[in-house]
Parts: sequence; C-alpha cells; structure tokens
Amino acid sequence: MKQKTAMSFRSGCPINILLEILGDTWSLLIVRDMMFYGRCAYNEFLNAGEKIATNILSDRLQRLEAADIIEKRRDPNDARKFIYRLTARGIDLAPMLVEMILWSATHEKTDAPAKVIQAMASDRAAFIANIRENWQVASQS
Amino acid sequence: MKQKTAMSFRSGCPINILLEILGDTWSLLIVRDMMFYGRCAYNEFLNAGEKIATNILSDRLQRLEAADIIEKRRDPNDARKFIYRLTARGIDLAPMLVEMILWSATHEKTDAPAKVIQAMASDRAAFIANIRENWQVASQS
Repeated sequence: MKQKTAMSFRSGCPINILLEILGDTWSLLIVRDMMFYGRCAYNEFLNAGEKIATNILSDRLQRLEAADIIEKRRDPNDARKFIYRLTARGIDLAPMLVEMILWSATHEKTDAPAKVIQAMASDRAAFIANIRENWQVASQS
Repeated sequence: MKQKTAMSFRSGCPINILLEILGDTWSLLIVRDMMFYGRCAYNEFLNAGEKIATNILSDRLQRLEAADIIEKRRDPNDARKFIYRLTARGIDLAPMLVEMILWSATHEKTDAPAKVIQAMASDRAAFIANIRENWQVASQS
C-alpha cells in the first residue's frame, strides 16, 4: 500500500526519498527510541543519550508525524499529555535500523551489548519479528 | 576489524554513530552512485538526478574519505583526474541501502524498476553478493 505524503522529492530514487524523509542526524534516533526502548513521551526523547535540543526535538516530532512515521495521541493516563507511537510505516523501518546497528558494531567501537548484536546478526528475521510483536502489543494498549 | 576514525560521537549507540558519519541527505546518495551505478568521477556525481551543488559535493567527498567510506586515487587513464571508490567499510553499507530501497518501494511511489525491487526482495543475500562481486572486480582494475 503506497502512502502518498504531501512531499515532493528531488528525484524518484527510493534511497533519495527515504533520505528526504529521514536523512538527518536526529529523526532516526527518535524512531530508535520508540522501536528499541519503548519510549513514547517527549521527556523520554529529550533525555536520550545524545542530548537533543528541545527545538530540534519538537521540529522532528512534527516532521515525523507529517511523514506518517509516528502518530500522536492523548496519553490515556494523563489527558494533558501526549504519547507518540510508530505507525505501520514507521515499524517497517526495523530491517534498515538493524542493518545500521550491524554496520556500526562491525566497523566502530559502540556501546551495544555483544549479546544483542550476536542475536541480531545470527537471526535477523527472528529479531525483527520480535520487534514487530512488541509494537503490536503496545499498539493495542 | 574495528576501524578507528578520528571522530568523537555524541553517544556510543551504533545507530547514532552511523548517523553522525552518514546522516545527511547527500552522503548516502554518493555511496549509492558508486554502489549501484558504478559512478566514480566527480562529474558523474554532479550529474546524478538530485542536482547536488558543487560545494556540497566537494564537502561530502572529503568527509566520506575522512570517514574511510570512500578512497580517492589518480585516474589511471588521466593523471590530472581523480576517481573515487568504496572501501571495504563502504561496500558493507549494501545491506542497509537495500533495506532503504525496499522501504521506499513499499511505502512511496518511486522510479525503481519493479523487476529490480522484486529481485532484491525475493533474495536479498544473492542481490548483495552480486553487488560485492562487482565491487571486487572493479577494485582489482
């Protein structure tokens, strides 16, 4: 199912399109926080390891929502707050993020636990299925 | 084999590291041109579909070289010119780029030929092995 966003792209190359949607050094960290750490609140993104600035965070959350990568809802536990979740388009970024992790773990010194990297490398499909399952469960709550 | 670049990163998260190295909307298009189209010269990158500006292209080529993603050599056919090639670190980005392509082809309208997308989706491993083979051959020339 093709999602038509309101964006117009520099070219129709699939790599270019993804980079125009997500190619800055912050957007995919927000996706990471949601996908791998189950973070869903503004303050949780703010307190992630890279110290994103509030204005950048607000901007990227808006852009990700406009691109249908995340969605924003009222927090059922506190109606004054919002929570963010990955959409189906967003969770479909899992295979790409897994390849990003494996590349860095192979070529740079990272903080990623060796056990997780090993699980990821030895059975990507199972690892990704597990991410999807967690997302499905969280989406039903 | 861990390559130690001279860079210091905002955090040790593997996704963050890759984004700091390659997370802008241009760097990976240069990698794409080399990986999928066999482009290796400055003018070939300049004339790709997205119309990169000369100052951005020069900057990104330098950054990619500093990050050991590409290497620069004298053109054996014309000693006044340079050619660029992916390093081993660079060609290892193939699985990530393939996932980027598949995501966009699934969720956006792209120019990618349906046949190529099908080959990629039905046997990623064979597709990537083929990319590596072409790179190996070109690296020996």
